[in-house]
Amino acid sequence: MFALTILGNNSALPAYGRHPTSQVLQIQDESYLIDCGEGTQEQLSRYKIKRSKINNIFISHMHGDHYFGLIGLLTSMGLLGRVTPIHLFAPVQLQQIIQLQLDAANTVLPFEVRFHALGEEGEIANDKRVSVSTFKVKHRIPCWGFIFTERRHPRTIDADRAKAYGIPTDFYEKLHGAEDYITKGGTIIPNEEVTVAAPAVRVYAYCADTIFDISLAEKLKNVHLLYHEATYLHEDEVKAGLRFHSTAVQAAEIAKHAGVNRLIIGHFSSKYESLDPFLTEATAVFPNTALAIEGCTFLV
Amino acid sequence: MFALTILGNNSALPAYGRHPTSQVLQIQDESYLIDCGEGTQEQLSRYKIKRSKINNIFISHMHGDHYFGLIGLLTSMGLLGRVTPIHLFAPVQLQQIIQLQLDAANTVLPFEVRFHALGEEGEIANDKRVSVSTFKVKHRIPCWGFIFTERRHPRTIDADRAKAYGIPTDFYEKLHGAEDYITKGGTIIPNEEVTVAAPAVRVYAYCADTIFDISLAEKLKNVHLLYHEATYLHEDEVKAGLRFHSTAVQAAEIAKHAGVNRLIIGHFSSKYESLDPFLTEATAVFPNTALAIEGCTFLV
Repeated sequence: MFALTILGNNSALPAYGRHPTSQVLQIQDESYLIDCGEGTQEQLSRYKIKRSKINNIFISHMHGDHYFGLIGLLTSMGLLGRVTPIHLFAPVQLQQIIQLQLDAANTVLPFEVRFHALGEEGEIANDKRVSVSTFKVKHRIPCWGFIFTERRHPRTIDADRAKAYGIPTDFYEKLHGAEDYITKGGTIIPNEEVTVAAPAVRVYAYCADTIFDISLAEKLKNVHLLYHEATYLHEDEVKAGLRFHSTAVQAAEIAKHAGVNRLIIGHFSSKYESLDPFLTEATAVFPNTALAIEGCTFLV
Repeated sequence: MFALTILGNNSALPAYGRHPTSQVLQIQDESYLIDCGEGTQEQLSRYKIKRSKINNIFISHMHGDHYFGLIGLLTSMGLLGRVTPIHLFAPVQLQQIIQLQLDAANTVLPFEVRFHALGEEGEIANDKRVSVSTFKVKHRIPCWGFIFTERRHPRTIDADRAKAYGIPTDFYEKLHGAEDYITKGGTIIPNEEVTVAAPAVRVYAYCADTIFDISLAEKLKNVHLLYHEATYLHEDEVKAGLRFHSTAVQAAEIAKHAGVNRLIIGHFSSKYESLDPFLTEATAVFPNTALAIEGCTFLV
């Protein structure tokens, strides 16, 4: 399981039943929450995503449509009796805002919020499933994108073949470590003879809110699934630039230059009721594009 | 028009499609927003209540289910181009929380938020439609209720009768001021002869979150429509007390002792899926009780 579910796809304010930005990346049995606009906790309920599976939350920047739902989600987790710590990766200002709100309510959460302030680019988190790194994008205020790279699994031992070659089981850990086996007679049994390759590593990148910046494509070279904002249609390209946002065509250009497998576009401006033109414009440049429709899940 | 519309009726966290607390009192052409839980801006859209008609917002206390939707509503109002000031009546801590969030987004709202910190009991606002006063209730943190008292209208002049008595129109303003008219011949024309009584003044009271406190009934003597929280059913009376909340029966007791016309109960705990038992328990004590169902409007 390495799948992205869209919880909110709108920019700025709720409109036409669309919610502000939030996504959840499910990797194996863990959920990684990316941005958390107002109403995210309700969207999690609507799409049956368990809050208890979320142990890491990533907030790209301090515009409210990307984090106003966080304090409600955290306090609800507390009311539901959560004790497991949450890792929160976010711009530094968010820590004080959360603390003031807890203080004003005279609330102490029953779990720890381990706050990690975003700063330099590079790896910010890793566990047995995934490594997460950040990169800076160009927006009106400091803003970070996130790359989720699946951890390389060890090769799987082919037990039948290993047994046939007479390899003792206490050498299996070394087989996992890619070592060859040398028999008592001095024959080398190459590791690949008795192990099976792990599945390819999958990569998801979330580009948050950004002006069109072709240099971004360089950072996205190994990405399979790419989310890039597309706040505006082509006719509003000038406005997009002035507001440090992108158009659907520009998102598609980034996907094409980066050579990703698939592009998801979202963060649609509230001025548009229909989203079809976004898809039409983007697919003309990068055919394998999908709209970030709320409730949809994309396998990476 | 003096009518209350329920936007959110749940306590603590959203559940069973119910939202955290918010209400809007519509008086003539103005809307007065009372509390603003997460998702209030969407509820306003759902029930077709114009944000532009809201010029006064009242926040009872600093538990998140009563104000987490406020920052989103304010920033959306800004994005929609509002310039008219908003009067915000709230606990003092809210001012800094809002300011930090605006600062972090590098946002300056295009309208002024005139902040009025809640403190002593008494009148906090009045305009040509209504006088608003606060009273303290007993909750885990400082918490205020609000009483909305319609302004007494002047008596209406019965133009036909005034003309028949020969009263000149330049005396009409004095008629509005309840003066009698004295003819040139010295005859007194009593004011009531040529004017019609204004409709009776209507009063709505919102009791916010509170433990059962029978002394509250004294403050609610002249109230027509009363909202009192009923977080729990009777079987959870002890728990209600420990958490400084009330039961449906206790809310009904307050309504009975205060002698109000009608009681609305809300702020239901997320543990209850069905709300019917709340109504059953409350009406046994105070028959004219209604549930605060979201989207329902109650005429005062």
